[in-house]
Amino acid sequence: MKSEYRPHWLIVAPCAVLAFTTSSARAADPLPSWNDGAAKRSIVAFVEKVTRPGSAEFVPAPERIATFDNDGTLWCEKPLPVQLYFLVDRIRTLAPQHPEWQTTEPFASVLKGDVGAALSGGERGIMEMFMATHTGTTTDEFARIVQDWIATAKHPKTGRLNTQMVYQPMLEVLSYLRANGFKTFIVSGGGVEFMRPWAERVYGVPPEQVVGSSVKTKFELRAGTPVLVRLPELNFNDDKGGKPVGINEHIGRRPVMAFGNSDGDQQMLEWTAAGPGARFALYLHHDDNVREFAYDRQDSLARLDKGLDEAKAKGWTVVSMKDDWTTVFPSVK
Amino acid sequence: MKSEYRPHWLIVAPCAVLAFTTSSARAADPLPSWNDGAAKRSIVAFVEKVTRPGSAEFVPAPERIATFDNDGTLWCEKPLPVQLYFLVDRIRTLAPQHPEWQTTEPFASVLKGDVGAALSGGERGIMEMFMATHTGTTTDEFARIVQDWIATAKHPKTGRLNTQMVYQPMLEVLSYLRANGFKTFIVSGGGVEFMRPWAERVYGVPPEQVVGSSVKTKFELRAGTPVLVRLPELNFNDDKGGKPVGINEHIGRRPVMAFGNSDGDQQMLEWTAAGPGARFALYLHHDDNVREFAYDRQDSLARLDKGLDEAKAKGWTVVSMKDDWTTVFPSVK
Repeated sequence: MKSEYRPHWLIVAPCAVLAFTTSSARAADPLPSWNDGAAKRSIVAFVEKVTRPGSAEFVPAPERIATFDNDGTLWCEKPLPVQLYFLVDRIRTLAPQHPEWQTTEPFASVLKGDVGAALSGGERGIMEMFMATHTGTTTDEFARIVQDWIATAKHPKTGRLNTQMVYQPMLEVLSYLRANGFKTFIVSGGGVEFMRPWAERVYGVPPEQVVGSSVKTKFELRAGTPVLVRLPELNFNDDKGGKPVGINEHIGRRPVMAFGNSDGDQQMLEWTAAGPGARFALYLHHDDNVREFAYDRQDSLARLDKGLDEAKAKGWTVVSMKDDWTTVFPSVK
Repeated sequence: MKSEYRPHWLIVAPCAVLAFTTSSARAADPLPSWNDGAAKRSIVAFVEKVTRPGSAEFVPAPERIATFDNDGTLWCEKPLPVQLYFLVDRIRTLAPQHPEWQTTEPFASVLKGDVGAALSGGERGIMEMFMATHTGTTTDEFARIVQDWIATAKHPKTGRLNTQMVYQPMLEVLSYLRANGFKTFIVSGGGVEFMRPWAERVYGVPPEQVVGSSVKTKFELRAGTPVLVRLPELNFNDDKGGKPVGINEHIGRRPVMAFGNSDGDQQMLEWTAAGPGARFALYLHHDDNVREFAYDRQDSLARLDKGLDEAKAKGWTVVSMKDDWTTVFPSVK
């Protein structure tokens, strides 16, 4: 697949650290990594109007639900979404038990190091790889596999841990909303059991506030001990029209605020914006080729045409990563 | 179906009111409607040991998850579970649009007033009635239908609102746990969208903490307005082995405490009790023919054999409604 990556990380790092260390000097600003532009002002103005008692658009605390896409909204999804690197590493780990993978696509391409070719075969092959690598264990075993992997997995270009490739400005939005009585949820096309083992540590979002795609699971007694076994069958695809469905099923309230960055988030943003009373929809536009990756409607993997067009047409808050963020990634301790 | 109801409500009512009004005199007791027996002591001892800092069995607040079955655990499920009365009323309401129901079972029996006959036809007919009465609307429309119905729906024997047929001692447990940092969840075989419209008002459990059975829903744009349409297809049956599955899918943490009253709750209790560290499982035994309904292993609708046997064998807390509760229902204002 086409990469638009430009390796300017070393140039950017000092600026990022500077922006981060000076944040304590302006403690009153809940969003120090945001430039004082229209996007930041729209977030603050919205939160102030829905939380000010007596405001015509006041929203009681229990109804303050905010939903965030994960890949490309809370952390970096380029060159590939992180869960695909997990999938690739799982294929390599499990390969000795599957000699047939050496000659069976799409596994053979992965084992030859050509992930692009493996992915280009389409949805069916990708789903086959997901089922072969994400199921067959108990839920407890899978959580440990994810925990072990995420503890050391690094971004292929920056060498940072993937959990350090999260967006500092969005971490600030999460904290700011929680400080204002919001419950923050992740609503992602990614696997719910891939995200839950680390989402609380990295984002402050507890497992019960993570909504995602899932496989079917089955309750079993093994020698008298109850386990939940992950079956090789898709249970729920939490993407596009599935996002409002997942929100309704898991949260049971329409969000007051929603944050996304692709066509996969479009229906979540529509569903949120169409609610009665004050609603807020934000679309993050990846236009920063220097500090992250610029990708847009011509992108090969993500679908980005309709969401961005609708965001502009409907006056949702559109964030330019390049212009609106002083810092992209947190400083590394 | 067999009813073991004994109409002693008038005799009991003064005692109930007395017990309720004297509760303020012993404000230090978080469970005033519980007799000072083994059941009450086991609840208090467990909560104290998992919340006391420095305790060997201390559980950090984010992990304090408590799950409650609804029918027969939080509110009365006799003579029939409340949702079946809703179903019956929906059939009557919709009958003019379905002239074929007059001669088609199980609808015809319902319209003749013989609900027992309609239910005796088995699971398939019951599911057919559920789909005919619980789907075809948007989620917003269905919530309004439930709200309107629950506002006036009364118990057929006591004449109380169904929302007043909740168990006062269990309301106290819910409050007591929340005051000790627990998140309280409902995990019920009942419909999640049947419970959410009133669970927050009645139990203090917000929609995002209600897990239940569900039908599939579909995102649609109607004249540009997004809606979620309820489809006549079961999505998830949150009963028996489905309860741990639903807990894992929605909450993503194993409960520390679980409360049930039937074989439908057995796997939830097993799953909870089998977790590492301190765990608590409670089984409510309906043995009070005077103040509620005594029903046990010979019951025709609920399945109660295995759960109670396992509760006793494993030393879970078994509550005798007759002996452990000073009051069953809250006083009516």
